[in-house]
Amino acid sequence: MASTSIPMPYRERVQRVRTEMRRRRLDGYLVQNRMDQYWLTGFTGEDGFVLVTRRAVVLLTDGRFDEAASVECPWAKKVLRKQRTPERNARELKKYKLARVGFDPGHFTVAEHQGLRKAVRPTQLVPAAGLILDRRITKDEGEVAAIREAIRVAEKAFVKVQRWIKPGLTERDIAARLGYEMQKLGAQEASFPTIVACGANGSLPHYEPGDGVVRKNEGVLIDWGARVGWYVSDLTRMVWPGSIPREIATIQRIVKEAHDAGIAAVRPGVRATDVDRAARRVIEKAGFGRHFDHATGHGIGLDVHEAPRVGKGTNTKLLPGMVITIEPGIYLPGKGGVRIESDVLVTDTGYEVLSTLPY
Amino acid sequence: MASTSIPMPYRERVQRVRTEMRRRRLDGYLVQNRMDQYWLTGFTGEDGFVLVTRRAVVLLTDGRFDEAASVECPWAKKVLRKQRTPERNARELKKYKLARVGFDPGHFTVAEHQGLRKAVRPTQLVPAAGLILDRRITKDEGEVAAIREAIRVAEKAFVKVQRWIKPGLTERDIAARLGYEMQKLGAQEASFPTIVACGANGSLPHYEPGDGVVRKNEGVLIDWGARVGWYVSDLTRMVWPGSIPREIATIQRIVKEAHDAGIAAVRPGVRATDVDRAARRVIEKAGFGRHFDHATGHGIGLDVHEAPRVGKGTNTKLLPGMVITIEPGIYLPGKGGVRIESDVLVTDTGYEVLSTLPY
Repeated sequence: MASTSIPMPYRERVQRVRTEMRRRRLDGYLVQNRMDQYWLTGFTGEDGFVLVTRRAVVLLTDGRFDEAASVECPWAKKVLRKQRTPERNARELKKYKLARVGFDPGHFTVAEHQGLRKAVRPTQLVPAAGLILDRRITKDEGEVAAIREAIRVAEKAFVKVQRWIKPGLTERDIAARLGYEMQKLGAQEASFPTIVACGANGSLPHYEPGDGVVRKNEGVLIDWGARVGWYVSDLTRMVWPGSIPREIATIQRIVKEAHDAGIAAVRPGVRATDVDRAARRVIEKAGFGRHFDHATGHGIGLDVHEAPRVGKGTNTKLLPGMVITIEPGIYLPGKGGVRIESDVLVTDTGYEVLSTLPY
Repeated sequence: MASTSIPMPYRERVQRVRTEMRRRRLDGYLVQNRMDQYWLTGFTGEDGFVLVTRRAVVLLTDGRFDEAASVECPWAKKVLRKQRTPERNARELKKYKLARVGFDPGHFTVAEHQGLRKAVRPTQLVPAAGLILDRRITKDEGEVAAIREAIRVAEKAFVKVQRWIKPGLTERDIAARLGYEMQKLGAQEASFPTIVACGANGSLPHYEPGDGVVRKNEGVLIDWGARVGWYVSDLTRMVWPGSIPREIATIQRIVKEAHDAGIAAVRPGVRATDVDRAARRVIEKAGFGRHFDHATGHGIGLDVHEAPRVGKGTNTKLLPGMVITIEPGIYLPGKGGVRIESDVLVTDTGYEVLSTLPY
């Protein structure tokens, strides 16, 4: 399929992938990851196997997703097949008589690769990691709009739940209600398992909500997001039923300052590690460095954790169109934790904070 | 770790895996899949890499899951490492000086396998598909109890939602509410994205709930399940606001008869394909054979779709302890569909229907 007949934004994406294919001397590329497939073609079916050649985009799927394929990417060559085995996919691939076909070694299982490799001979399968993922790192206008909508839904649900939170509710109650409200507002799902941590549980950054109970004058840490139209949001806020204990109020002030410093460092050309540094320095200076042991943030888009990682050692330079989280925290074992998280767009000249909830 | 110091049920599971290792002449086995890891060790952490040797069970994880590892499988040798790269895992593996270590080629990516293969030399990595999955196919008493609980939660939530369903609600409303009620009752999550299909949408077996609206005298097909304590349920029922249209009432009678015939065929020694046949024959005899184009059922356990597939060509013989779904359906394009699904335990002498909701 010639690029000119592909509608935007897919035309540009296919062109960018083909440019990278040429650079790597590939005459074909296999897209196996579902989010990569969605990004490249708009196809949402559960069973998909996509081949990009220099002239064609071919989508293999089964009868269940016949209609989805026709509606979502009528411009791709659709092949319906009953078996989804590597051998069956290879039969289609061989028709194109390609010499070197790239694939992402992080997206194919050993079993899939072995089956395919043998069956496509003399075509050679060439590892080409991140060929799509590296293109997904900057978002176009439509993608930024989708992320804004995912943020809007997450925030609207949060405001509703926040008003309802009171002592006696469990973490599980709150997580369930938040998921329900997001879905009622149009979310496909929570973009990841919601974290609700009451009191001392807040000191575990990856806590899973359980029977912990909301208590007066103890913080509730909520880390949640929505998936809307396949794009995600990722936010963290603290809720305080009653007043804030003095020690926790201190760390909250520091975390807020670190969060603001991280955001202020965001602009094109700056390395992700420097944004991490800007936030981390505030916490270190206040003497809590060893209580902040995760990265300051990460990219979001179709996945909740995408490139770039905003952490120590990430030399990737920020580019306009990247959307990253800024989420420093301080965790005091046995006492509790505070984390504040915003979603931030890198603009041509600096940044725009996409999330709007007060802190 | 000698087997005798491992508590039940893990002792028996480790022994069964070691028996199979010996049969395949392996002196080690790598468990990468999270559900396989849970089944074998009880460990629930997100980051895990498990090695079984003839004497030891080694769990590699990171500091976030230190406590989980200690509480959930204190009998395993715990190794905390910062990097979760294949190379770092290999360093640990090499300490055991093993000759042939098996792995499931369906659970390792090409990238993971390549990195590991090089770094563990002279240890050889040997593909050994299904070594754990094939052991998970029959459930012990504790597992059957967990599935019962997952069914109880799903059914209790359904009864609540069923009473509330009325014309005007959307499919999305119903799916969201069902998920919420299951979580309030202790489910970790819906065991798969709930299907709610109103009226004609019911003719698409893999429909995703959308803006379809409940109407009087039109069926609502609901296919849902809960994950409780990691084990799942999977059920389908029809809800009828008002009366049932004549043609749909006819197919409902046939589907119910097929469902009952499938269940009646369940007993140890019977092939899964024969159970499929028993249900399918009823639908074919009634002249609707081409409107039932999926398998009659599948195993459930830690995954929603496990072996055995209860479909054409599955020669696997049923064994006591298997838990399968029986879910025939008839789908009339443009008109609607009916599916009825129960969860069935294979007993020593026949079957027990674990689900209890009326049809």
